[in-house]
Amino acid sequence: MKIFILINCPDQSGIVCSVTGFIHSNGGNIIYLDQHVDKSENVFFMRLESDFDAQSFKLKEFRTSFKKELALTHDMDFSIHSADSKPKMALFVSKYNHCLYDILSRFNSGELKVDIPFILSNHPDLAYIAAQFNIPFYHVPFTKDKRDTAEQEQLKLLKEYQIDFIVLARYMQIVSSTLIDRFPNKIINIHHSFLPAFAGAKPYHAAFARGVKIIGATSHYVTEELDAGPIIEQDVTTVSHTHSISDFITKGRDLEKIVLSRALKLHIERKTMVYNNKTVVFS
Amino acid sequence: MKIFILINCPDQSGIVCSVTGFIHSNGGNIIYLDQHVDKSENVFFMRLESDFDAQSFKLKEFRTSFKKELALTHDMDFSIHSADSKPKMALFVSKYNHCLYDILSRFNSGELKVDIPFILSNHPDLAYIAAQFNIPFYHVPFTKDKRDTAEQEQLKLLKEYQIDFIVLARYMQIVSSTLIDRFPNKIINIHHSFLPAFAGAKPYHAAFARGVKIIGATSHYVTEELDAGPIIEQDVTTVSHTHSISDFITKGRDLEKIVLSRALKLHIERKTMVYNNKTVVFS
Amino acid sequence: MKIFILINCPDQSGIVCSVTGFIHSNGGNIIYLDQHVDKSENVFFMRLESDFDAQSFKLKEFRTSFKKELALTHDMDFSIHSADSKPKMALFVSKYNHCLYDILSRFNSGELKVDIPFILSNHPDLAYIAAQFNIPFYHVPFTKDKRDTAEQEQLKLLKEYQIDFIVLARYMQIVSSTLIDRFPNKIINIHHSFLPAFAGAKPYHAAFARGVKIIGATSHYVTEELDAGPIIEQDVTTVSHTHSISDFITKGRDLEKIVLSRALKLHIERKTMVYNNKTVVFS
Amino acid sequence: MKIFILINCPDQSGIVCSVTGFIHSNGGNIIYLDQHVDKSENVFFMRLESDFDAQSFKLKEFRTSFKKELALTHDMDFSIHSADSKPKMALFVSKYNHCLYDILSRFNSGELKVDIPFILSNHPDLAYIAAQFNIPFYHVPFTKDKRDTAEQEQLKLLKEYQIDFIVLARYMQIVSSTLIDRFPNKIINIHHSFLPAFAGAKPYHAAFARGVKIIGATSHYVTEELDAGPIIEQDVTTVSHTHSISDFITKGRDLEKIVLSRALKLHIERKTMVYNNKTVVFS
Repeated sequence: MKIFILINCPDQSGIVCSVTGFIHSNGGNIIYLDQHVDKSENVFFMRLESDFDAQSFKLKEFRTSFKKELALTHDMDFSIHSADSKPKMALFVSKYNHCLYDILSRFNSGELKVDIPFILSNHPDLAYIAAQFNIPFYHVPFTKDKRDTAEQEQLKLLKEYQIDFIVLARYMQIVSSTLIDRFPNKIINIHHSFLPAFAGAKPYHAAFARGVKIIGATSHYVTEELDAGPIIEQDVTTVSHTHSISDFITKGRDLEKIVLSRALKLHIERKTMVYNNKTVVFS
Repeated sequence: MKIFILINCPDQSGIVCSVTGFIHSNGGNIIYLDQHVDKSENVFFMRLESDFDAQSFKLKEFRTSFKKELALTHDMDFSIHSADSKPKMALFVSKYNHCLYDILSRFNSGELKVDIPFILSNHPDLAYIAAQFNIPFYHVPFTKDKRDTAEQEQLKLLKEYQIDFIVLARYMQIVSSTLIDRFPNKIINIHHSFLPAFAGAKPYHAAFARGVKIIGATSHYVTEELDAGPIIEQDVTTVSHTHSISDFITKGRDLEKIVLSRALKLHIERKTMVYNNKTVVFS
Repeated sequence: MKIFILINCPDQSGIVCSVTGFIHSNGGNIIYLDQHVDKSENVFFMRLESDFDAQSFKLKEFRTSFKKELALTHDMDFSIHSADSKPKMALFVSKYNHCLYDILSRFNSGELKVDIPFILSNHPDLAYIAAQFNIPFYHVPFTKDKRDTAEQEQLKLLKEYQIDFIVLARYMQIVSSTLIDRFPNKIINIHHSFLPAFAGAKPYHAAFARGVKIIGATSHYVTEELDAGPIIEQDVTTVSHTHSISDFITKGRDLEKIVLSRALKLHIERKTMVYNNKTVVFS
Repeated sequence: MKIFILINCPDQSGIVCSVTGFIHSNGGNIIYLDQHVDKSENVFFMRLESDFDAQSFKLKEFRTSFKKELALTHDMDFSIHSADSKPKMALFVSKYNHCLYDILSRFNSGELKVDIPFILSNHPDLAYIAAQFNIPFYHVPFTKDKRDTAEQEQLKLLKEYQIDFIVLARYMQIVSSTLIDRFPNKIINIHHSFLPAFAGAKPYHAAFARGVKIIGATSHYVTEELDAGPIIEQDVTTVSHTHSISDFITKGRDLEKIVLSRALKLHIERKTMVYNNKTVVFS
């Protein structure tokens, strides 16, 4: 049985030795280890993949003794996941289909080890894609007067389907702080610029007006401050004076879908940790 | 004899036909033509390279009749350059040597068709490189009380050496508006971020603090507003949580020198035109 | 009415002037012009976009007089297309769905101005995607003994649906020379390596064995020689010792779909010309 | 005192635990650890950076007990280096100056922690650069009849200056097998193509003839087979039909110097390990 272990704690001497020794003495074999020390903050991060004998290994007991024997003495935050467990991901969309198709075609081919209990949208336009892939689609409009009931409906659905994390696949609606509080570092957004440049609305128009020679896309965890959360992944492409705003948008779509899919794959594979409004992204 | 022609004018029907016809009827052969129409502003841009018979061709007369027969009727801004004429470039530096070495090694191998009458610095540190390459070096300190005399000395040198354009090769000193006025779109700077992100001082520190996954460099023409002039060239490289600020700086140096050298090469080869605080960069 | 004009001919003095003059005198306005001279072969290439008055313009007559007045005297190959006409594209697939989904989602959102009369496969696996998008799907198996009848069926379908060009979207079957002869420079393939490295079967395995740090994908027109046709578009991504062959394949899929889609978009927009087993790709 | 430890051995359970425990019990603090398991070959690789108390730590004794207590029992190949020790690097060049200037300017600014005892060339052309940087220059011509004496002179110089590794900075001369045998995985070459495409002579000409849209450069360790050694670093840049062979060469120079400098920096910082004609490159 394969498990993932994620740890962060104050940096201290002998920590790698303690953790690897613990796994070893519990019959585990380390098949991957990556660690990082943030020297300015003096924080230690580690991600491990370990194999245990499927017959005898008991995840719950391992977690308990890990906490007692390691986490408490080293002041650790940690999480342990079975590689077999699939997180439940909700997809929020609006009218653009490119990110949605990209995610669903990966899901479809088994690239994303995740469950997708439902797709939610503030517009009805993309219901046909949900139908194509046999995924429940909820149309939750977000007009001014319906804001509160809409938010309640979102929360109800997220709870009902036991959602682990949310992907805003070009969801053109600001997410409420209630939602953010319930899903800290568990809402992944794609912004269509190389942040921090061109945060907010209409970044391609702003990029065109500035005359940049490179445009980008950024996937990040959503925090209270708009487009200012921890960055997971970014990529860029070149543009020139020959490109119109409409060309920027078309070229940008390819960036958006690739960058978002990379980010959510990292999240699904438990390769990201958040600290100080930044991410550690393990290889 | 090869000449470069750069044109911009209000977009109008028949303009390509008129210009190519004029060149043809004057005995020229068009070996390169690139044009661009800015549809939002309704402006036409064109760059041509033409071959003329070296014996009979007279650049000055051609320029006069171009003006009379074409430019006036079509409301054109234009410039015509002999491919053999080398612009005179002044290099302004401070303490970092990487851009300077990169430019001088290209100059040395004949890649840059330019004259470099002098190198100027507000610090004495890089005098030894000027000496290595046998180029006059002027140390013009820029302390607060010397600001005015320093500026006068700069202007005197630029005039004396008949400088065509200035390259700020990591010159860590804000250039005066007098200088900018005298060299409009003729001062090329390298800024160590993908503008408009991280304008101003210490961009690598700001990028590190924001936790970006990509850093960049931008070469632009200098205007009154800091780091806001027309962008000529940009490039980026990936970074991760494993990189310190010092790693950002080291990786960034490679970007800075390559991006600056590309930009000044485009300028030297008369491939850039400025309009509306943007550049048209011909291929 | 907007038209595209593509020209190639022996390089000669005055050619730009003649063509632009002809368009001008026929009431056309040039909105885009790009030209290229292959100096080693002495061939001239040009692509133009022109606007004509929709009421009075007659494409057929324009084509006839273009031929008589320009093409014959200048020894030109040329083609003229209305920007409104949509080419008919056949999609050939096998078992991988990523390129197919990528193309269909672009088609679906209007990014690709093309008709897709049918999808053909040598395997039944992807029939469900054709059904999702309501496109006829033909399963034409290509086992050894059925080779001839399969080829006949392909040709029949291509003729019946008046197909203009074929896209091999990870079609894992070598295309017959009969098909190539009937569709010269009209069959677009995606090969999963940066050609000419790793032509032929299993390029990711070969790349892994060689220990490369970069993998790529190449879209090219199909010619008799395997993976040796004119290259339209290439792109690459970095890999490291940490990546397995399976990681190469996953990362490569993103390259394949993006590169193939870019290539077929260039083809659809009439931006490619083939000469000497190379492409001229206009901006 | 900071040391680097590089290990490879058959993969086995408990190895990370053993090594980190050994360092810990010897008073060391692990500040960096990266490991990799080649699953197909069942080989374990690890790189560590550790801090020890400068007063009490004795590198020689540590190395001895590391060997006795760890390396023998785990069948390890290992090397331990002080972070302060500077390897001695010989530069071999011919006529192109771009890689040489790039390396020397980095050396000059302290980016490369290395000693450069001499520069050797089969041509006299670049002696002036060696003079600029005050580094001894040896002109060792390599004409057919002088091959043997030339090789002897090379070996003599390498021995005399106690050279640790050799950089072929566009050295246009095949290196003898005697030299390769004496410096296994210690001769770094830059080849001007994205290997394995275009191995051998005139890769830019071959790339131009094939009509590729991307050109590259590859830095690798030199082995008996030409351009087939373990790849350390690669990078690419885009080209188009508008670029001549001469443009390829100019654009390629920027790739060559950056890629070579990255590779030799990785080597200097002990971040590379060679196995099965591939490299493991630690972050």
